[in-house]
Amino acid sequence: MDLDRLVADAREGVPRAVGRLISLVEDGGVGGDETPLRELAAALAPYTGHARVVGLTGSPGVGKSTTTSALVTALRADGRRVGVLAVDPSSPFSGGALLGDRVRMGEHATDPGVFIRSMATRGHLGGLAAATPQALRVLDAAGCDVVLVETVGVGQSEVEVVALADTTVVLLAPGMGDGVQAAKAGILEVADVFVVNKADRDGADATVRELQHMMSLNRREVSGPSWRPPVVRTVASSGQGIDELVGALDAHRAFLADHGRLAEGPRRRARAEIEAIALADLRARIRDLSGALGSDSALGELATRVVAGELDPYTAADEVVASVRA
Amino acid sequence: MDLDRLVADAREGVPRAVGRLISLVEDGGVGGDETPLRELAAALAPYTGHARVVGLTGSPGVGKSTTTSALVTALRADGRRVGVLAVDPSSPFSGGALLGDRVRMGEHATDPGVFIRSMATRGHLGGLAAATPQALRVLDAAGCDVVLVETVGVGQSEVEVVALADTTVVLLAPGMGDGVQAAKAGILEVADVFVVNKADRDGADATVRELQHMMSLNRREVSGPSWRPPVVRTVASSGQGIDELVGALDAHRAFLADHGRLAEGPRRRARAEIEAIALADLRARIRDLSGALGSDSALGELATRVVAGELDPYTAADEVVASVRA
Repeated sequence: MDLDRLVADAREGVPRAVGRLISLVEDGGVGGDETPLRELAAALAPYTGHARVVGLTGSPGVGKSTTTSALVTALRADGRRVGVLAVDPSSPFSGGALLGDRVRMGEHATDPGVFIRSMATRGHLGGLAAATPQALRVLDAAGCDVVLVETVGVGQSEVEVVALADTTVVLLAPGMGDGVQAAKAGILEVADVFVVNKADRDGADATVRELQHMMSLNRREVSGPSWRPPVVRTVASSGQGIDELVGALDAHRAFLADHGRLAEGPRRRARAEIEAIALADLRARIRDLSGALGSDSALGELATRVVAGELDPYTAADEVVASVRA
Repeated sequence: MDLDRLVADAREGVPRAVGRLISLVEDGGVGGDETPLRELAAALAPYTGHARVVGLTGSPGVGKSTTTSALVTALRADGRRVGVLAVDPSSPFSGGALLGDRVRMGEHATDPGVFIRSMATRGHLGGLAAATPQALRVLDAAGCDVVLVETVGVGQSEVEVVALADTTVVLLAPGMGDGVQAAKAGILEVADVFVVNKADRDGADATVRELQHMMSLNRREVSGPSWRPPVVRTVASSGQGIDELVGALDAHRAFLADHGRLAEGPRRRARAEIEAIALADLRARIRDLSGALGSDSALGELATRVVAGELDPYTAADEVVASVRA
């Protein structure tokens, strides 16, 4: 694989090259060798820093993909180049998503100003926390003005991914108990913009009220001028409210710019990426520790002793940490 | 706090003592001091190893809590002591779930043979992967025959939690596109038993068929005799099918026993717990690394250099790992 050629093609916006580079990131290198990822990171560095990242999250069924698709239409009408990353939680068992979100984005498939990718990390080095910033760098270098990251909004890892965005949109829909679900998953607190989608349905007003009530209970403590997340009503399937959503995204961007905070997102992504890669390295070292008996890993032997009641798990963990640091 | 007293009371099944010990686990000790957790692990060790752990997972809206509640009723009728852990993904931002599942379990609230707890980990040492096995040990020592762990089944961390069970139940419901959602979240592969709940609704047959089709595509590769996950139809709200579900759980248990595999679950839990505690320790060391400039953490300084294009994230991570190991 000629990495320089691929990077050059990706910068020209050749979809196949963009796709191959994201696959490389997703697979964690070639056959477990991370060397190409290191080279890719170095090769892309000069061409990044332009794209803004918008995260979209919410429970299954609120209409994330439909909203994402409508946003793509609106941003394209505005002449902006758009990337979409649909992040599927990885399966630790079979290695990946069976079905992608690509199918639902069919209408944009032939637009050369749009790149769409489903991502599943296959338990590779650093998982989503590392792979997502890497894929964003590819799309950034490919000339995207905006990258939309769509995740299922229930779960720790997914909250972590969406927290990497410059602007985070949390979607709810009427009548699904979503307010509660959202709060439980911790996504209420990460929202810069709320969308109540399917706003033509019964219960939309109640959802908006519940949201405003929860926000009043749950103010983020921030230093300096604070951003109050607006609540936008949409019917994504008909495009209703999507222009208002674009306006809200731009207003948040302007707020960050006015307060000298545009660098926060990129810095957060870099920090998460470095930490994720370092932790994955350390985790691999933990799993590679060989046991005293030779027939099992050290971790497996320690687990057996904990189950037998000979050792408590904290002391076992101390032994693991000491071995990794030795 | 007199830990020995609490452990003794918990062993007698005093609900308040059980609750306080789980709170201790959930909070990650007292004021960040993990010493009591170490002592607790040691104090409980002699009294554990009896309870079997059943995980229940599925997308929001499939009826997990209703099914869990119906299972509790059936197991109680059978004279078994039951614990319920409802695991809420933690909020990394505000620290925890706003609303617990406890409210939905009201009918069992006064039964002394049932312990019910919602759990949210507050980003503490090891997160859910460490806290869940610890809470299970408390319920085990309190004399539970069965502990039901209910999690929202979308997300990496939640899949990891449910994979700690001895037997894992994956719930679906007709007409929610759940087959697809389940597969995306990787929970299809962890199922020992499938439940199609709300089986009186239109589309139940289609859901069962879709599931069987996916299973045929997606066989786990196992050595030795393999367990084929049964599909149980339930209407949890009326109790229909719950006895069959109990039967399926017992059949899976018997299968494990017949093949000498009963120790796998406890060993898997111990392994995950040790690894999670060790990784949390290493993560804390990463975050504590002080930077060369003194005004920022080393991680923050490295992130700034990555954003500036002076350093690639892999080299930055190498520096982090080297510092942790130094």
